[in-house]
Amino acid sequence: MHDRLKGFREFYPEDMVNRKAVFNSIENTISSYGFREIGTPSLERTQLYVDKSGSEIVDHLYSFQDQGGRDIALTPELTPTVARMVALRGKSLPKPIKWFSTRPFWRYEQVQQGRFREFYQTNVDIFGSSSPSADAEIIVCAAHILSNLGLDEDDFIFLVSHRSLLSGLLESFSPDVDLSAAIRAIDKKDKIDSQLYATLLSDSNFPSNSIDDLNDILSLTDLSEIAEFAHNESMQSAIQNLEEIFNIVSQTVAEKHCSISLKTARGLDYYTGSIFECFDASGEVHRSIFGGGRYDNLINDLGGPSTPAVGFAFGDATLEKLLMRAGTWPNKNLKTDYYVIQVGDTHESAIQLAHALRDRGNIVETDVSGRKFTSQLNYSNSINTETVIIVGERDLKENKITIKKMSTGEELQVSLDDFPGDYDSPTYDDFAPTTS
Amino acid sequence: MHDRLKGFREFYPEDMVNRKAVFNSIENTISSYGFREIGTPSLERTQLYVDKSGSEIVDHLYSFQDQGGRDIALTPELTPTVARMVALRGKSLPKPIKWFSTRPFWRYEQVQQGRFREFYQTNVDIFGSSSPSADAEIIVCAAHILSNLGLDEDDFIFLVSHRSLLSGLLESFSPDVDLSAAIRAIDKKDKIDSQLYATLLSDSNFPSNSIDDLNDILSLTDLSEIAEFAHNESMQSAIQNLEEIFNIVSQTVAEKHCSISLKTARGLDYYTGSIFECFDASGEVHRSIFGGGRYDNLINDLGGPSTPAVGFAFGDATLEKLLMRAGTWPNKNLKTDYYVIQVGDTHESAIQLAHALRDRGNIVETDVSGRKFTSQLNYSNSINTETVIIVGERDLKENKITIKKMSTGEELQVSLDDFPGDYDSPTYDDFAPTTS
Repeated sequence: MHDRLKGFREFYPEDMVNRKAVFNSIENTISSYGFREIGTPSLERTQLYVDKSGSEIVDHLYSFQDQGGRDIALTPELTPTVARMVALRGKSLPKPIKWFSTRPFWRYEQVQQGRFREFYQTNVDIFGSSSPSADAEIIVCAAHILSNLGLDEDDFIFLVSHRSLLSGLLESFSPDVDLSAAIRAIDKKDKIDSQLYATLLSDSNFPSNSIDDLNDILSLTDLSEIAEFAHNESMQSAIQNLEEIFNIVSQTVAEKHCSISLKTARGLDYYTGSIFECFDASGEVHRSIFGGGRYDNLINDLGGPSTPAVGFAFGDATLEKLLMRAGTWPNKNLKTDYYVIQVGDTHESAIQLAHALRDRGNIVETDVSGRKFTSQLNYSNSINTETVIIVGERDLKENKITIKKMSTGEELQVSLDDFPGDYDSPTYDDFAPTTS
Repeated sequence: MHDRLKGFREFYPEDMVNRKAVFNSIENTISSYGFREIGTPSLERTQLYVDKSGSEIVDHLYSFQDQGGRDIALTPELTPTVARMVALRGKSLPKPIKWFSTRPFWRYEQVQQGRFREFYQTNVDIFGSSSPSADAEIIVCAAHILSNLGLDEDDFIFLVSHRSLLSGLLESFSPDVDLSAAIRAIDKKDKIDSQLYATLLSDSNFPSNSIDDLNDILSLTDLSEIAEFAHNESMQSAIQNLEEIFNIVSQTVAEKHCSISLKTARGLDYYTGSIFECFDASGEVHRSIFGGGRYDNLINDLGGPSTPAVGFAFGDATLEKLLMRAGTWPNKNLKTDYYVIQVGDTHESAIQLAHALRDRGNIVETDVSGRKFTSQLNYSNSINTETVIIVGERDLKENKITIKKMSTGEELQVSLDDFPGDYDSPTYDDFAPTTS
């Protein structure tokens, strides 16, 4: 028997029922905003990812040559595929285009806690609007997904910033600063000691004597206070953009989860406007849970028409860690509505009864193993059956069946003509004599 | 912009809504039989498929070496993966184990009408029962799926046989016959001329002077008539097994779809008992739609414990062709329950209203593009909105909003306090004055 590949997962029914409950909740929330589901291929040309992320990306791809000599890769992310879909039909679709999907993606990474080589990711995007109200809807929808999964303001926080804010701030200290290097240093600030942080900043040509001033500004969370340090145009328009976004967010459930953080510098090369990152408010889950933001250039860069875009994507593994930590990961048990026990040669009636109950939307099993009564009853117990229907040869002669309530063991006989009758999901209690 | 790979598909929302409706119907029917959903990885070791199907399979796989030097393949089918899952936990799970899933698979094949390199397949299996009632449940469930998708007895037919029946019959004519070659000839019978058919049979060492007799028996569809030609034990027990299966099937909706066909010889090497294949009853779709049967040796052959198994699998492409032919492929339009139009600076109230309606389970959009009234109204039309809510600056001062029924253009004003009120999905009609 060959083993499962490292970083890949199998889900047995008892796990799957909870995953589905989470995915369904997510899907319902997203759909309520008018986002529509799309379906996308699992393989693309490798060049699509090289064009977007540079040739180093290949080391993190499952990429290979197919039998026809094409260089292809298992999709590591959705964006390039969606960009093509927008490019192909974008002109004929009413704007904004609001799409979502949940599906597996693949990256060849070091496997660790909460990081897999095959992971599920939900993508939510608005194409064709550059208005801050689109940025706001993305943030609000992301918060709404989490609150509908049972999380509250003690559970998660969105740190919000703007792509131009941190770089503008750094440039205002010195035009010579290496922005990428400085931003990488700031990104690590809370994880490294202050001396290493200072060294990294100095290495980026950031003036050493300004580090304390920088730190003071980085800790600000009030846009009007930050505005005092906005000495260039790009910072000023970034602050105005964030003010407009917060003006809308503040009227929603998302308000209590959102705060400004200049240190958030997620995906500098990719994003062009607002950015946000979700963290565990308790701090127990160390990694960023997910993030998103505005990326107005990407569709054009990938060869499509110039199209503003804003969205977010989250993976199943970190989300599960957060819900587990908060105690809101569902804990559903698999259950079976009915088990129809066949005693003697009664499969004709048993199967017809099972079908009548199935057609009414119930989960119904009956014997498919040729078992005796006790063995069927034990099996019905093992699959967590609510109601057992006993169809016995002798009872059938009197046109009767027995309903057994499994939680109490109570049972009674009813006429086959009355069951299921007008009920969708008839139980023992529906037929039990009322005690007065 | 890089093109999509040949044999791969993208689904825009207007296609996806219909695919989802079909998948949901399938999933509901399967679940009603107590089958439970599992989740499985998209990559496995290539050797898993070579062990099952021989080294020629590699030509039809997307297989490659990963960055760690492992020989891996995109899964072309579910069975070997499920076999491992059964092997790993089978001992602790109550039998029968009843599992299903729908997900993409990949095969490097010639792309043609209704055949793709990435396709979706639904797998339904019962593990741990060798009873004919399990074979029957598989056939009945498969028929039930199709009838719940709107197909009736004029639309599809299941040709049912048994793995030992055709080979036993051929052997009864001559012990020297090359079974694989003869079965391949019979499989092609209806597609080739009678002379070529006779040549192929003769090449397989089938006695030429018995071809007419063979054809007569092959055309029989009555088990008791076939039984007269069952001169060996394996044929006799196969007929008895099919009689027991049909005895159960005949009490269900599946009866009118099932008929015996000795020519059905699907997957000889794989199946060990009953086999069935689904065809378009109108004949318009030429290819087999899907099939299934009993495969009691496979889990053991793949290194797992000896476990009887019976199941079926169907792909999305041929199923879509059948439903299209029968006119039952759904034709749903994307629709939007509410669009909330903002006139002037009313986004606070508009967004709160949108949220109240979303939390009641509706699909609600509001402006995310900073558009004027007419432009918002046009957009709401383009996304097929049922009810438009107009939140105007002046109206709001009187605490009023306007409800517009899009199908008729009728509108009226209501107090913001009454909307949505106790309604889950309030419409114009709920507030319109009754005409007497």
